[in-house]
Amino acid sequence: MYLEGKNAVLEALRAGTPLQQLLLFDGARPDGALNEIVRRAGQASVPVTRMSRRKLDELSERGKHQGVMAQVAPFEYTPLPRILDAVDTVANALIIVLDHVVDPVNVGAIARTAEVVGAAALVIADRRAAAITPAAHKAAAGALNHLPVARVTNITRVIEQLQQAGFWVAGADGSADTLAWDAALTGKIALVMGSEGTGLARLVRERCDFLVKLPQHGRIGSLNVSQATCALAYEWLRQNRVT
Amino acid sequence: MYLEGKNAVLEALRAGTPLQQLLLFDGARPDGALNEIVRRAGQASVPVTRMSRRKLDELSERGKHQGVMAQVAPFEYTPLPRILDAVDTVANALIIVLDHVVDPVNVGAIARTAEVVGAAALVIADRRAAAITPAAHKAAAGALNHLPVARVTNITRVIEQLQQAGFWVAGADGSADTLAWDAALTGKIALVMGSEGTGLARLVRERCDFLVKLPQHGRIGSLNVSQATCALAYEWLRQNRVT
Repeated sequence: MYLEGKNAVLEALRAGTPLQQLLLFDGARPDGALNEIVRRAGQASVPVTRMSRRKLDELSERGKHQGVMAQVAPFEYTPLPRILDAVDTVANALIIVLDHVVDPVNVGAIARTAEVVGAAALVIADRRAAAITPAAHKAAAGALNHLPVARVTNITRVIEQLQQAGFWVAGADGSADTLAWDAALTGKIALVMGSEGTGLARLVRERCDFLVKLPQHGRIGSLNVSQATCALAYEWLRQNRVT
Repeated sequence: MYLEGKNAVLEALRAGTPLQQLLLFDGARPDGALNEIVRRAGQASVPVTRMSRRKLDELSERGKHQGVMAQVAPFEYTPLPRILDAVDTVANALIIVLDHVVDPVNVGAIARTAEVVGAAALVIADRRAAAITPAAHKAAAGALNHLPVARVTNITRVIEQLQQAGFWVAGADGSADTLAWDAALTGKIALVMGSEGTGLARLVRERCDFLVKLPQHGRIGSLNVSQATCALAYEWLRQNRVT
């Protein structure tokens, strides 16, 4: 996958998106943006290849490269067993599971919050769901370079694996009877968040150990999924606070 | 201000953005998107004007109208005194004050969460800060049609007015000594959030009655301002819960 144009490449470098190589038009004139791109690529040890405009045109899908393209490195997902091994002996851990969140900006925003609250990992689905794209990296503001992300085929199967590993699995659902503040979110908790349009799938909801909701007092439909994840992740942190 | 193109106009209509009029190329061929645009414009009582392509070209700034443009209605801000009057006799109220948040997507996301938690109002600055743009409307998902928003010149002056109206003013600041969970957020609270880049201005921080922070355990810098606002708004709601 290629990014095209100064803005897209610069944003990716600023967000810490792993890049495989930077492709520059060999006759490009230096300007502020280009200088920053080359400097940041150097800091991140991204190899720079200079080439003719025609070669760039051939690689370009959208024809908007402005003499600058970058090849995005494939995201390195972490196998779920390795994530579970890492939290095997700890008393408290939070794993956030996304049941088919489709907007990569939401996935990135959730990754950023997950990293800040000290979550152990994020789990996403490999189909009908957003992957770790450059848009996700941008919203994550660097968090995806630190937070392990597992990509799985079957969310209900993951719930079983988490339960076998000692996690209580809490599904976020507007129809829950229990407010998050009243639920027991201490210890090892997996928090399952539903997709933007339809929430948790029925099978996923049924496999959760319990369901929680956030009170909503407004007239509009509901919270954005990344906002809801943030409020619930901080409620997990509050219930598990050390001091 | 004009929106251009089917996508932008359709997104605005879906988000409930108030539109003054819809402008259509009089030779436009109906398709799924155009039909939905005309239907939604009718539901929202937006007048439709049909015109020649040349007339649309003249109004278009970006030359991307695809035969569809819409004039965005100016957002109707609410004067601060009217907001304060409305909460004069209530015991608990939350007003969220943005000290120069510059990304309209953040402003919209904060408006959405504010509306859901039942905040009384949002206060934004009129310079060096994001206004209520179509991007804000989109992120707000309809909340801006319900949540009063005041636009003010001087944030420190607003803090004084809020204090005179009986509000405790809490500034969100990473350098605060007090965690939000330990602060008294009951009653009438104004929550002041800083800008994306630099946080609270020094003068604003000094005028707050107290400062609060959210614990952060990650390796990256900090939470996104809309995410932090959500966690703090829900902490206000938790401390003021009725049941």
